[in-house]
Amino acid sequence: METVTSPEDRSGSPPSDAVGLTRALIRCPSVTPAEGGALALIARVLGRAGFSVARPAFAEPGSPEVENLYARIGTGAPCLVFAGHTDVVPAGEGAWRHDPFAGAVEDGMLYGRGAVDMKGGLGCMLAAALAFLDRRGPDFPGSIAFLITGDEEGPAINGTVKLLAWARDRGERFDHCLLGEPTNPAALGEMIKIGRRGSLTGRLTVHGRQGHVAYPHKAENPIPGLLRLASALVAAPLDGGTRHFDASNLEFTTIDVGNPATNVIPASARATFNVRFNDDWTAETLGAEIRRRLEAAAGNAVRFTLDLQPSNSPAFLTRPDGFVDLVTAAIRAETGLTPVLSTTGGTSDARFIKDHCPVIEFGLVGETMHQVDECVAVADLERLAAIYGRVLDAYFPISS
Amino acid sequence: METVTSPEDRSGSPPSDAVGLTRALIRCPSVTPAEGGALALIARVLGRAGFSVARPAFAEPGSPEVENLYARIGTGAPCLVFAGHTDVVPAGEGAWRHDPFAGAVEDGMLYGRGAVDMKGGLGCMLAAALAFLDRRGPDFPGSIAFLITGDEEGPAINGTVKLLAWARDRGERFDHCLLGEPTNPAALGEMIKIGRRGSLTGRLTVHGRQGHVAYPHKAENPIPGLLRLASALVAAPLDGGTRHFDASNLEFTTIDVGNPATNVIPASARATFNVRFNDDWTAETLGAEIRRRLEAAAGNAVRFTLDLQPSNSPAFLTRPDGFVDLVTAAIRAETGLTPVLSTTGGTSDARFIKDHCPVIEFGLVGETMHQVDECVAVADLERLAAIYGRVLDAYFPISS
Repeated sequence: METVTSPEDRSGSPPSDAVGLTRALIRCPSVTPAEGGALALIARVLGRAGFSVARPAFAEPGSPEVENLYARIGTGAPCLVFAGHTDVVPAGEGAWRHDPFAGAVEDGMLYGRGAVDMKGGLGCMLAAALAFLDRRGPDFPGSIAFLITGDEEGPAINGTVKLLAWARDRGERFDHCLLGEPTNPAALGEMIKIGRRGSLTGRLTVHGRQGHVAYPHKAENPIPGLLRLASALVAAPLDGGTRHFDASNLEFTTIDVGNPATNVIPASARATFNVRFNDDWTAETLGAEIRRRLEAAAGNAVRFTLDLQPSNSPAFLTRPDGFVDLVTAAIRAETGLTPVLSTTGGTSDARFIKDHCPVIEFGLVGETMHQVDECVAVADLERLAAIYGRVLDAYFPISS
Repeated sequence: METVTSPEDRSGSPPSDAVGLTRALIRCPSVTPAEGGALALIARVLGRAGFSVARPAFAEPGSPEVENLYARIGTGAPCLVFAGHTDVVPAGEGAWRHDPFAGAVEDGMLYGRGAVDMKGGLGCMLAAALAFLDRRGPDFPGSIAFLITGDEEGPAINGTVKLLAWARDRGERFDHCLLGEPTNPAALGEMIKIGRRGSLTGRLTVHGRQGHVAYPHKAENPIPGLLRLASALVAAPLDGGTRHFDASNLEFTTIDVGNPATNVIPASARATFNVRFNDDWTAETLGAEIRRRLEAAAGNAVRFTLDLQPSNSPAFLTRPDGFVDLVTAAIRAETGLTPVLSTTGGTSDARFIKDHCPVIEFGLVGETMHQVDECVAVADLERLAAIYGRVLDAYFPISS
């Protein structure tokens, strides 16, 4: 087992509280895809608490080998999984108030890369599990698992997808998952995520015929055709939203012709768009609707090609059930807030986990994630650990 | 005086017929901006015929030095100027039937780079002038001048513009100009050009705010704004054409965003357009109308910048007058065709000459210009020389 070079560690005993664990994790320079000592620290913490711990590494040609961690205590159902990632994005350009890998605390704020995304979330999960086992001992009715990857900020190829398949192959079954990504816009307790929109990318090419601008009748400018098709796609909304989802949204991300000559009509024009879509659609039905709209706009006047990129990011929803209520109650008890059940924002590893068990995301306040001076309120870490503790207590009730 | 290495030249006596002169010029490898011996040949031909010949070279920082030629016979008015260029575009990629710089004749066609654009036109002008002087002697009532540049196919900085200024500074005054660019689409005699449309280039930038596609409300996608503004510019014609000009025409030549990330909304989007405009407009009034249309389409919803490139290419027209009729009659007499008086096509050096005197363009059939196997019918060379000869005879009538 690797040595974790953090002050808390010199005694040989890792910290067990949320703040101490978060600081120790921040001090591991686990910039994706480097392990940086972070998984080793978690393995040590969980191993000492009685978990059986595995450290599978996955690789495939063209992507870096990535270390992961799977730990479980208990063998029976139900099994509640805490999921997360130890890898962080680079410190980035710009001067930090404090060394991004020092874990400094100033005026009640803990600074460092990963403070909220999501070493803070991991520290809270670990602290909550340790405290729960302290209170209840190892013989509670069910199991707690940790599913931790080092490949969430990277290509996400050798991380959660393979770790879930690895666990399934070994007979591991999960009943519910709590993913600790930062979910709150401004204050702890505002928002849990019970699903995510899907993502579909399309590349549109309009074909013309090159020529001289002074002789447009001898050429066929593809740009007016592209304007027509692209305008048709942004003209009308795809839908009006669903019960738990905002309206699907299409954004053109680029248009590129690349013609430097101002006296030449180009041969073709290309555009790329991305749709974040709700549960009214699958990638297939959405792709068909987009193609229908383009064909209607093109008529016989515009020749185009539509290339829809395969999407591994469908829209999904954790149907509001007892687990959502249980997490909501835990949040309300600690914060006084009733969290919004949201499906907004970008994608996360929840899109993979949802194929194995219902998954909810709840973590810290995401405001500073990926930024210079990423930081978290020490009080938030303590409250999030308490919320996770309430979830464990409610999930594994003492039989009366 | 340089030696011209063509067979016709071995005797020490350059050719005096249109075909021989064109072949000798094709054998001079005057790929722009190289002189290649072509101007030296013309200087020799005209010098022997009694012209006074000057060979001014012009240069400025950032552009190649270019040789030019000015020749005149006679001192009185009226002065008829033959204008043209000796430089040619490169042979290009692709296999030629005959060496592009050999001047081979096969089946009545003379092959070579510049055969129609415009060493053929120069050969015909020279042959017509020599024949005219043979018939009439040097004491005809007026002057003939040649204004020949080696910088028409290049940046056109050290060519006709500076040569015209140079001549004006020396007191040279011109009454009419015949520019020998290829003007006929398919058959000699179909078309003379009595003006040209202007050219104006604009660069349109729409400004937005970068962000993540999953959070469009936190960003401002510039692409829908660009679609709106660009669509507005191509929606309605700028005008319906004028008596001698087609309708003005706007073509978008490129749109470039350059955003490789499909999950990022870009910060700005840029497009370039070029307008070929008729004599309803100046560059200033047209620029103002385009700005007006953009502002109307943008309203308060789209932030944009319009950068209009300075244009040295206004629309102009040689008002149909006696000179147009004289050239038309000469063409009709040789070909049986009544030429269309056209203002179509790209720009030419006529845009500079028109500030000094009325200018008409009439030359060979342009079909093969700038292509592999550029060629001209030997019969067309002979007929064009005869047409230019008829122009000279009619322009300088024998006083009765």
